[in-house]
Amino acid sequence: MDINKILSQIRFDDKGLVPVVVQSVETKEVIMLAYMNAEAFSKTLTSGKMHYYSRSRQKLWLKGEESGNIQEVKEMYIDCDNDAFLFIVEQKSGACHTGYYSCFYQKLNDNKEGFIITGKKVFTPEEVYKK
Amino acid sequence: MDINKILSQIRFDDKGLVPVVVQSVETKEVIMLAYMNAEAFSKTLTSGKMHYYSRSRQKLWLKGEESGNIQEVKEMYIDCDNDAFLFIVEQKSGACHTGYYSCFYQKLNDNKEGFIITGKKVFTPEEVYKK
Repeated sequence: MDINKILSQIRFDDKGLVPVVVQSVETKEVIMLAYMNAEAFSKTLTSGKMHYYSRSRQKLWLKGEESGNIQEVKEMYIDCDNDAFLFIVEQKSGACHTGYYSCFYQKLNDNKEGFIITGKKVFTPEEVYKK
Repeated sequence: MDINKILSQIRFDDKGLVPVVVQSVETKEVIMLAYMNAEAFSKTLTSGKMHYYSRSRQKLWLKGEESGNIQEVKEMYIDCDNDAFLFIVEQKSGACHTGYYSCFYQKLNDNKEGFIITGKKVFTPEEVYKK
């Protein structure tokens, strides 16, 4: 692995971040969109487990560190502009902190007047996250 | 359609933008990541064709306006934080300005030392984009 060579190709934004699309290897669903800084990206590649940079908490974050719902890296792609990532992962349980398998569980309804819940609930947040 | 009700639910960032994941209805591949402002989102819903806000050109942009490679909206999702969209689209020809079907045509190789091209080339940019 040559992390510095790879890092030199990536165009981080003015906050040092890159948006990351996460897709399930099993269902092909897009399960979340999050952000990585250089450290999160490096830790993801070295550990094989998805790490992100939390913009709200302003810190590095191992996905699943509290819930146990880790994401194991299967494939990784970079886009034509070198400023967005696509990771194909094996998702344990569910990706969303609300208990849904995917964070994109709200679908625009047919008359375009609002969103309906179409996602699959796979765990109970109260049981997974400590108070 | 009640566009103002929908717009009021969306959390645009400090630049008035939302990141948009675009997935092919046909192949389930993630084909691009782009951004919408409120105007691009409204035009996308009213026209059924994907519109974006170009951060580099700082203007509204109908995907395919020059190349003809438009994206027809099939489904639309919003994430748990109401700050990211997922659109499922029918992609005419290819999504990437380089001629690939997907913008994510560069895959991290197995020894993690660089990227290899794994995407499918579907058109010749020189023939599609006017000089």
